Amino acid sequence: MLNFTYSNKTIIHFGDKQIAKLTKAIDKKRKVLLAYGGGSIKNNGIYQQICDALKEHNVVEFSGIEPNPSYETTMKAVELVKEQGVDFILAVGGGSVIDGCKFIAAAAKFEGEPWDILAKNAPVKSAVPIGVVLTLPATGSESNSYAVVSKLATKDKFAFGSPYVHPEFAILDPMVMSTLPERQLTNGIVDAFVHVMEQYLTFNVNGKVQDRFSEGLLLTLIEEGPKVFNEVNDDVRANVMWSATMALNGLIGSGVPQDWATHGIGHEITALYGLDHAQTLAIILPRMMWEMRTEKQDKLIQYASRVWDINEGSNEERIKLAIEKTEQFFQAVKMKTRFSEYQLGEEVVDTLITQLERHGQTAMGEAQAVTLERSKTIIANSL
Amino acid sequence: MLNFTYSNKTIIHFGDKQIAKLTKAIDKKRKVLLAYGGGSIKNNGIYQQICDALKEHNVVEFSGIEPNPSYETTMKAVELVKEQGVDFILAVGGGSVIDGCKFIAAAAKFEGEPWDILAKNAPVKSAVPIGVVLTLPATGSESNSYAVVSKLATKDKFAFGSPYVHPEFAILDPMVMSTLPERQLTNGIVDAFVHVMEQYLTFNVNGKVQDRFSEGLLLTLIEEGPKVFNEVNDDVRANVMWSATMALNGLIGSGVPQDWATHGIGHEITALYGLDHAQTLAIILPRMMWEMRTEKQDKLIQYASRVWDINEGSNEERIKLAIEKTEQFFQAVKMKTRFSEYQLGEEVVDTLITQLERHGQTAMGEAQAVTLERSKTIIANSL
Repeated sequence: MLNFTYSNKTIIHFGDKQIAKLTKAIDKKRKVLLAYGGGSIKNNGIYQQICDALKEHNVVEFSGIEPNPSYETTMKAVELVKEQGVDFILAVGGGSVIDGCKFIAAAAKFEGEPWDILAKNAPVKSAVPIGVVLTLPATGSESNSYAVVSKLATKDKFAFGSPYVHPEFAILDPMVMSTLPERQLTNGIVDAFVHVMEQYLTFNVNGKVQDRFSEGLLLTLIEEGPKVFNEVNDDVRANVMWSATMALNGLIGSGVPQDWATHGIGHEITALYGLDHAQTLAIILPRMMWEMRTEKQDKLIQYASRVWDINEGSNEERIKLAIEKTEQFFQAVKMKTRFSEYQLGEEVVDTLITQLERHGQTAMGEAQAVTLERSKTIIANSL
Repeated sequence: MLNFTYSNKTIIHFGDKQIAKLTKAIDKKRKVLLAYGGGSIKNNGIYQQICDALKEHNVVEFSGIEPNPSYETTMKAVELVKEQGVDFILAVGGGSVIDGCKFIAAAAKFEGEPWDILAKNAPVKSAVPIGVVLTLPATGSESNSYAVVSKLATKDKFAFGSPYVHPEFAILDPMVMSTLPERQLTNGIVDAFVHVMEQYLTFNVNGKVQDRFSEGLLLTLIEEGPKVFNEVNDDVRANVMWSATMALNGLIGSGVPQDWATHGIGHEITALYGLDHAQTLAIILPRMMWEMRTEKQDKLIQYASRVWDINEGSNEERIKLAIEKTEQFFQAVKMKTRFSEYQLGEEVVDTLITQLERHGQTAMGEAQAVTLERSKTIIANSL
């Protein structure tokens, strides 16, 4: 096992009717920015629950944070935060709104050009404190220190992280899933699954707790994910939501190497072709697993056995079957797994490789083994 | 799944040579109480590493916190804290030292008779902040809010909990295990195992993540625990240490019912007969499982299957075999599992029942189903 430092300060309020806890979770002395996306929270009752909980608080609103939150939009909120003297940001949404709010929180306190936080890894030295009401289980952003923000003008998509933007609290009420569009449920389940895989499917350092926890999350998503579309009940929603949070709150990745090469390629697909984040991961992951089958053999065999109960055949046969099962799981939660299903063809290969090169993504993964050449093979195999 | 609120603020520094992180983890403006037990840290190099890390800090020492820390001893430290104006407590030890320090931290700030914190659940409203260097993986006390303290004069053993005594940081260097006496390793492994069981082996609320995480910890302890005595290496130590912390940091018990009846009886055995805490748990747990086999049938069958790969036979046969395997695991880590092995006989039954009654322990467990009568059966079956 590798050395690590782990902490997670987010206070999780999980379950039915937890939104009412906002009243005490945010100090009444604070001026609150209530930030959200396209306004669906006004139709599903969440907005009203929040207004009820914050009726004695001083609140200003900012709406319109889009999927793949943009620098352009979030900078408008930064102005509002400064103008109004906001000293607490309540992000109400999924990963995009939360990530956008993390950037707003850091940019509002940043001296200099905030774009440098994203493009140049300029250090964040303070931020407006953040709380979250999660409306879409997927990214884990509600209890981690990371965010991804895009610049529309240049089609760049960058990540940043800072303990200062780690949410103080997160309210997770699984009932919010009951009004989500099918596409968002699909995205959330696949996103969480691939987050686990990025931390699990690496070279083996004998981190037995981390491996078992990762496998537990994968098994839960495999068992419960497809039910979200058919035999959904409170426990199904709760299990999916808690899995997605645990998938990327730092715990399962502590003390083990991490990969993130599938995300590396996926981010470029979203930036160039506008596919949803999870859609890109479902296209790339199966071919990434196959391309890296030699380096990752031990863990792939373990994955085949413990997650899919595949215990017979040659190593290559087991790995192949485990990858097929993975792709079938994506399909079972109504996700496409090929470029061609989005009317994208051979032209993507060179375009994506050029973009990866431009962003210096020439040696991705836990062992820096995903070269441009191997990325090209992976992308070409995913058409 | 049940509603829950979960947070854990402890910053974990895990791995080789992490003790050096003390230098930055404790503000130099603070006056530090370095508190420890019988002095073994002076022989194994830990004391020296701590002194090196704190050479520029203002430190006073308090040693002699005993196994099952006593009110009498800890109150001497409370006086020292007040006299010397200590404003940070560094607990160096296992669960006993940490628990003792939690009580010292709370008692030093308590207005009134500190014993009331233990005996009357008097609310703790502040505490001296605490950090930990863990020397014995076992209780999980290094990153939770709970402590157990005994009063020698009356043979009472009480628990208390408060977020104010939750450690700010904990340093977990698995190498500290290399110089531990066999008995302490045995105790630690069994203690961690039973902590998981108390949160796992309850009625089923379909908390799939919690169940899988619990099973992951049990499997890790079963695989790695016995190796500690033979084929030990860095990874074995790291896996056991991380399992013990994760076993009782609040995570696996969030959103599920919790039992603690085995601990209820176990605490009385320690208070009356001086057996180590884990020794008492290993005596009681197998018979507790058997006595509660109807109420806990679903989870016992799941435990048999997922942890011990027992998938054939009648329900009763599977449960019986799983309990036998559990007891054999305790024996494999060199733990005794019967009163008679400690030269205790029938006389313990009535004495323990009287003590349980005196402490109001007449309906223990997640369903309050462990009555005095059933406790009597469990104890009698454990002779």
